[in-house]
Amino acid sequence: MNPPDDSARARMHGESPTRAARRRIRAADHRHHTAGLADSFVQANVCILPKAWADDFLLYCQRNPKPCPLLAVSDVGDPRLPALGQDIDIRSDVPAYCIFRDGELVDEMSDISGLWRDDLVTFALGCSFSFEWALLEAGIRLKHIERGESVSMYVTNVDTERAGRFHGKLVVSMRPLEPADAIRAIQVTSRFPRVHGAPVHLGSPSAIGIERLDQPYLGIGTTDVAPDELPVFWACGVTPHSAITAARPPLAITHKPGHMLITDLANASLASF
Amino acid sequence: MNPPDDSARARMHGESPTRAARRRIRAADHRHHTAGLADSFVQANVCILPKAWADDFLLYCQRNPKPCPLLAVSDVGDPRLPALGQDIDIRSDVPAYCIFRDGELVDEMSDISGLWRDDLVTFALGCSFSFEWALLEAGIRLKHIERGESVSMYVTNVDTERAGRFHGKLVVSMRPLEPADAIRAIQVTSRFPRVHGAPVHLGSPSAIGIERLDQPYLGIGTTDVAPDELPVFWACGVTPHSAITAARPPLAITHKPGHMLITDLANASLASF
Repeated sequence: MNPPDDSARARMHGESPTRAARRRIRAADHRHHTAGLADSFVQANVCILPKAWADDFLLYCQRNPKPCPLLAVSDVGDPRLPALGQDIDIRSDVPAYCIFRDGELVDEMSDISGLWRDDLVTFALGCSFSFEWALLEAGIRLKHIERGESVSMYVTNVDTERAGRFHGKLVVSMRPLEPADAIRAIQVTSRFPRVHGAPVHLGSPSAIGIERLDQPYLGIGTTDVAPDELPVFWACGVTPHSAITAARPPLAITHKPGHMLITDLANASLASF
Repeated sequence: MNPPDDSARARMHGESPTRAARRRIRAADHRHHTAGLADSFVQANVCILPKAWADDFLLYCQRNPKPCPLLAVSDVGDPRLPALGQDIDIRSDVPAYCIFRDGELVDEMSDISGLWRDDLVTFALGCSFSFEWALLEAGIRLKHIERGESVSMYVTNVDTERAGRFHGKLVVSMRPLEPADAIRAIQVTSRFPRVHGAPVHLGSPSAIGIERLDQPYLGIGTTDVAPDELPVFWACGVTPHSAITAARPPLAITHKPGHMLITDLANASLASF
């Protein structure tokens, strides 16, 4: 008989799968990406900024809700996010962090307790994993997931709404879908405005400044669109990261892409109707 | 001072605009199309069939809710439709009727009292005027309306679900929209399943068997799609007419295209959320 896996063991002990996943991450037992972990629960993008920059960033999120859908903002200096999980300690509960100084990536860490300061503010933002869960639940097949590839992302020529020092171009993710699935995907994701919501564009990539679909941002992802498919574009959580690096705050800490904060919110609970 | 128009006079007398419009139609004071009449209220497609054909047609509508969204079905032999308006008499309240015998158009009339029989059943089906109202309310511009043209319709290669003697290809209407408006239009019309609901297709016309956009059904309508637009296709209320003429019942009576039954239902009341 095989030993029970971690989530089965957690259930045997009455622990929720999300709390169990965070416990493993906190203990540095899980340092890799979080795709598929507790996958009916919301995973969040994380940005941590000094208070002197946080007010502008909060306004930036308010003005750009599609790429920057806020799930929770911490109190100043408080590493907890009780709205997303009573036990969350943002200093240890993300598998990998990126440390930016003056807009430059200078380090990666699996725990930021040593960097914590009384003036830091944590922003947790919705992530496309949640709407991809909703699409899969609705029976829509996603090519990049079936292939085990990343979704492809692109920098558009669409300006986000500036807020103080934060500004930049909208970054989008693209999923190729047949027309009937594209219509259904618009319906399904419209119900989830807190995790990017409905697409921002579909069809012609050049209409939003994307000249080549085969050259995505970071050079990774599924980029082929079949003749019977349309490229469908959603606002992407890389947009705030891009705005943060452009604004060059003295310190900014984010999750490492794909290495998300696991929350206690069920994806289904975010449906607006 | 100009004399008050009919709807102003109706309001002065405490009569609803829909009841006033029907009164004028019943008196044969209004024999032309109904576009723009009481335009925040639902207008309905009408099909009248003998009972011997009505059960199959009811099943056809049940199996094909996007082209044939039922608003109301009368009792056998009863010319009233109280669910749509207490005073409706279907024998006189449509400005113009088409009379089909064995599937052939044989006459047009402005009153069918002389043809009424104890075995006739009336079907009232949702119409695109209602979702176009919702699109305009949402600030989406519709090229054919701005030009005062008809919407263009096309016979697709998509089979409807057969029910007894009723069958045929899906007929669609097409509206050219920029991508962001297409996304918004999908959201808006999804809320109105009783008036055709969300589009059935967008993008490539040939994917649903439409070889030439410039050759619409009946040869009329706005057909030009700009380079920054997508053709967006909705299921169309011409589909049941097409199925009826194909089935060749000995008698079928429909409204004349564009000459609809005006009901007391507010368009807004049909929103499903």
